[in-house]
Amino acid sequence: MIESLHSPHVARVKALIGSKGARERREQGLFVAEGVQCAREALTSESGPQLKILYATENGLSKISELDLDSVEIVEVTDAVLKAMSDTVSPQGLISLCYKPEAKFADLKATGSSTFIYLHEIQDPGNAGTILRTADAMGISAVITSPDSVDMYSPKVVRATAGSLWNISVFEGVTFDRVDKQFTGIQKFLLSSHAYTSILDISIPGDCIAIFGNEARGVDASALGVSVTEVTIPMAGRAESLNLSAAASIVMFTLSSKVAG
Amino acid sequence: MIESLHSPHVARVKALIGSKGARERREQGLFVAEGVQCAREALTSESGPQLKILYATENGLSKISELDLDSVEIVEVTDAVLKAMSDTVSPQGLISLCYKPEAKFADLKATGSSTFIYLHEIQDPGNAGTILRTADAMGISAVITSPDSVDMYSPKVVRATAGSLWNISVFEGVTFDRVDKQFTGIQKFLLSSHAYTSILDISIPGDCIAIFGNEARGVDASALGVSVTEVTIPMAGRAESLNLSAAASIVMFTLSSKVAG
Repeated sequence: MIESLHSPHVARVKALIGSKGARERREQGLFVAEGVQCAREALTSESGPQLKILYATENGLSKISELDLDSVEIVEVTDAVLKAMSDTVSPQGLISLCYKPEAKFADLKATGSSTFIYLHEIQDPGNAGTILRTADAMGISAVITSPDSVDMYSPKVVRATAGSLWNISVFEGVTFDRVDKQFTGIQKFLLSSHAYTSILDISIPGDCIAIFGNEARGVDASALGVSVTEVTIPMAGRAESLNLSAAASIVMFTLSSKVAG
Repeated sequence: MIESLHSPHVARVKALIGSKGARERREQGLFVAEGVQCAREALTSESGPQLKILYATENGLSKISELDLDSVEIVEVTDAVLKAMSDTVSPQGLISLCYKPEAKFADLKATGSSTFIYLHEIQDPGNAGTILRTADAMGISAVITSPDSVDMYSPKVVRATAGSLWNISVFEGVTFDRVDKQFTGIQKFLLSSHAYTSILDISIPGDCIAIFGNEARGVDASALGVSVTEVTIPMAGRAESLNLSAAASIVMFTLSSKVAG
């Protein structure tokens, strides 16, 4: 049982979620996932990030008592220690220290009916996490981010994914040029408020990738360096634009319905 | 030009966005909207919340110099005063003090092809604001909230609406029983992860209302006290659920497409 706030465990976890966390996570190949849902996914999923250490209070452990914990390193901590390790006001007594997945983008394959998502320089962690969660729900094959996008293993993103990090592959910092070279001939849709083609009117005979740009400035088709089909969400009302994760959710649902139908 | 942080203007704005802001907003009938987008909507929209005072720095005013400001009470403030009045780290130099709209729910009419949204005890301000923004984009007629839902004029909600408060009617604290009595025979859809009917398979011959429950516990159909059609979003993937605003956005888009089509 760790009782001291000066334990090196506390320092390590705090470094991984602190203001310089992005660098720490990159250098150590680790990230932190809080709460019951992530702990449960980390303990039961066959894929996704591997668990290194589960930090748990007595109360936290009681919430996952139905799970087999024999093969896991569990470090019991006091409430005060867990709170010091936490990014949230009310941690749930469980903090999972996990290895960032090492899957290589070069190994990602398209099946002939794969749908990928590409996020170009998106910044908001809530948006990124919500998009990953919807992508998981809609059976998207992988989420790929551009250089200069939000760190998908930052605490706020991890929280917003609600455990979906264990269900869907994520590849970070991949240029679109590289995506295009790897998936030659794949259909490329760029969501744009200026486009004339409705997402309801496109057809998808094979693999496709949907591209979403930065929250404030979107992404210019020419900046991607390859030819893409610009599509828009038909809007009957007055708002000029949608929240990015709302827009992406609508697009993913529509693509998913088309593939299923 | 207000330079003192002890000005009563500062105290009033801070009270409206502070921890007891909900009560202040209710008692004073006022709320605060930050930023360029809200100021622009407040100054140009024919409907929506009326502007009482626009607090602005010199830099803030330069961002809306194209607008007619003759009939508006503008109070110039220093950067420090504006910052003290602000809920955000980087305010944009403009804070709009607005009257909460006094529209009565009893006066809300259905047109025969109206779509309404009902939010039952939802709590997250980001969700509420995003839902309002999508509702505006999708031509929803009004957003109605139950008792014990998040205050739609709290700073975080207002920010997440991105100006849509000026485009769409909001009615707060209305029981569903009252909605049902006012709109007799209206089609009622409740989003539920347990339902068997896909939102893709419903048809909407007339007015309808889509109901969304609390983020964590949803809403039990029986709790509404009236008979509703439970519907679900078909999901091809593995996530058990969607973020509420993502789910609501998908539903509103689908309903909007059906009405348009």
